[in-house]
Amino acid sequence: MEIKHVCILGAGTLGSRIGFQAALSGFWVKIYDIKEESFILSQKMISKIAKGLFAAETYSKDEIAAALNRLSYTLNDEEAVAEADIISESVTEDLALKQQVWARMAQIAPEKTIFTTNTSYLLPSSLAAFTGRPTRFCAFHFHDVFYSKIVDIMPHPETDAELIPILDDFGKRLKQVPVLVKKENHGYLFNAMLLSFLGAAGKLLVNEVATIEDIDKSWMVNFHAPMGPFAILDSIGLDTAWHVTHQLPDANSKAFAALLKTYVDAGKLGEKSGEGFYRY
Amino acid sequence: MEIKHVCILGAGTLGSRIGFQAALSGFWVKIYDIKEESFILSQKMISKIAKGLFAAETYSKDEIAAALNRLSYTLNDEEAVAEADIISESVTEDLALKQQVWARMAQIAPEKTIFTTNTSYLLPSSLAAFTGRPTRFCAFHFHDVFYSKIVDIMPHPETDAELIPILDDFGKRLKQVPVLVKKENHGYLFNAMLLSFLGAAGKLLVNEVATIEDIDKSWMVNFHAPMGPFAILDSIGLDTAWHVTHQLPDANSKAFAALLKTYVDAGKLGEKSGEGFYRY
Ligand SMILES: NC(=O)c1ccc[n+]([C@@H]2O[C@H](COP(=O)([O-])OP(=O)(O)OC[C@H]3O[C@@H](n4cnc5c(N)ncnc54)[C@H](O)[C@@H]3O)[C@@H](O)[C@H]2O)c1
Ligand SMILES: NC(=O)c1ccc[n+]([C@@H]2O[C@H](COP(=O)([O-])OP(=O)(O)OC[C@H]3O[C@@H](n4cnc5c(N)ncnc54)[C@H](O)[C@@H]3O)[C@@H](O)[C@H]2O)c1
Repeated sequence: MEIKHVCILGAGTLGSRIGFQAALSGFWVKIYDIKEESFILSQKMISKIAKGLFAAETYSKDEIAAALNRLSYTLNDEEAVAEADIISESVTEDLALKQQVWARMAQIAPEKTIFTTNTSYLLPSSLAAFTGRPTRFCAFHFHDVFYSKIVDIMPHPETDAELIPILDDFGKRLKQVPVLVKKENHGYLFNAMLLSFLGAAGKLLVNEVATIEDIDKSWMVNFHAPMGPFAILDSIGLDTAWHVTHQLPDANSKAFAALLKTYVDAGKLGEKSGEGFYRY
Repeated sequence: MEIKHVCILGAGTLGSRIGFQAALSGFWVKIYDIKEESFILSQKMISKIAKGLFAAETYSKDEIAAALNRLSYTLNDEEAVAEADIISESVTEDLALKQQVWARMAQIAPEKTIFTTNTSYLLPSSLAAFTGRPTRFCAFHFHDVFYSKIVDIMPHPETDAELIPILDDFGKRLKQVPVLVKKENHGYLFNAMLLSFLGAAGKLLVNEVATIEDIDKSWMVNFHAPMGPFAILDSIGLDTAWHVTHQLPDANSKAFAALLKTYVDAGKLGEKSGEGFYRY
């Protein structure tokens, strides 16, 4: 099967990025959301990314204009999905909401449509039954599309094996590096490693082994890396970091979550709020 | 106190590197070992490093020649330590051996000498009683001196606080970035984080979540990093990795240690043997 038409569910941060890259890659893209304001924000995000891509000479003005021409927004989900060869779902990370969205797609999507979810922390098996087509449903998980270009292909136990090469090819056409997560795993590959690493840094901090600066320095200087763990947490957002950390069962994670909460409660969310572990 | 004379115990990989950097930084250096062959190997290592530093224009030929002139080897420990303002101990990583070495230094070192150990995985408190001067003893832990330039200053509970700024200053003069590990911690800062990260990668592999290549790609592509976890393990050496991993208590570490053992038993030690997870 050939993918030409892409439907994005959710015009937030990730939906906008995936949709824009799909349009840049020559696909026809419809982005659906329930809130009209999301489209205004999405257009702002996309035009900022477009400026960066143009400045970096990744795409010309004409290529960007052509891509924007292939991309449209709609508040009508039937229209969004009518021609879709594939759906990439990026609605808010909430199990009940995603289940409801997939139950609706089960009713209105054409038979040909492949279903994929971009969920960061839910497992596709928790959504599969709601899709009405579990064999044609798979996690297809992006990172930030333009800088971190891994896309995880993570089937659930019922996913048809024939879907894997199709998604692999689609991922490459989206200028991503596809990797196969052979069985369901929380955090896929990258986030699983990143969480362990950031958790170890958090453990050093809450146990008062060293300062934020010295922990970050250790990583940056030894690896010649641009950021240490606390700068990475600031870039992820301390609210998101808290959200993930406070669900972990061990005492060190709980203590680190409690520390993150003090930042979040003080409005220090990291880069996006101007202050987190560092000031921006 | 001013540090002028440095005594290095152990002319192996780390002793040679620390000794050479100390000589390059203008200190007078005596390197002691129990085996004469170690000196031949040490000289080879140092001349290879010197070539690299010259090629990178970090030091001139004259500066390197002057450094080599300040550095000497001896099989006589009394001679090695006679003038030493500081000892940096880099003998083989073995608790009983290090205890014995420090007990000997307690007898023969001048009163002024500061004692430091470069141990990677032992805690200084396990050696302090043998030094005869626990208040003037501290872990002072290098990484590889020339690429990874963090030096950990890790006191044990009895270490005199006045030693910290002296070691901080000495670390900077050795062109390192000193960080303070405020209380004893296995793996200091960097190795503690690295172990968690590498352990998470090992867990993905032994649980057959993904291939070596896909796990490495996930890290490298998303972070634009030159190496992923398995390439890093190859560079550390799979024997060393096994040595550290097989002592960890959890089931995932045990399973990963068992996998590492199959490589070690097959002579695949990583970069140094020409093959590990990858071929070199
Ligand atoms: N932000 C990231 O870095 C990142 C990275 C990878 C994956 N993800 C995943 O992508 C998904 C979206 O994350 P985000 O950061 O873009 O969130 P976001 O909050 O920026 O966007 C979510 C969007 O979904 C919309 N929405 C809510 N209910 C909807 C519905 N019923 N139908 C259609 N749209 C609806 C919201 O109006 C909003 O515009 C989540 O599953 C998240 O785990 C996020
Ligand atoms: N290799 C690394 O990457 C690294 C990094 C940081 C710290 N360290 C630590 O540095 C120390 C040395 O490690 P290495 O990799 O240089 O080991 P190595 O095996 O290369 O060298 C150890 C040297 O100690 C000598 N030795 C043994 N017994 C001795 C004695 N009684 N007196 C004097 N010398 C003696 C040996 O002959 C050998 O030359 C260890 O404690 C290790 O944990 C190693």
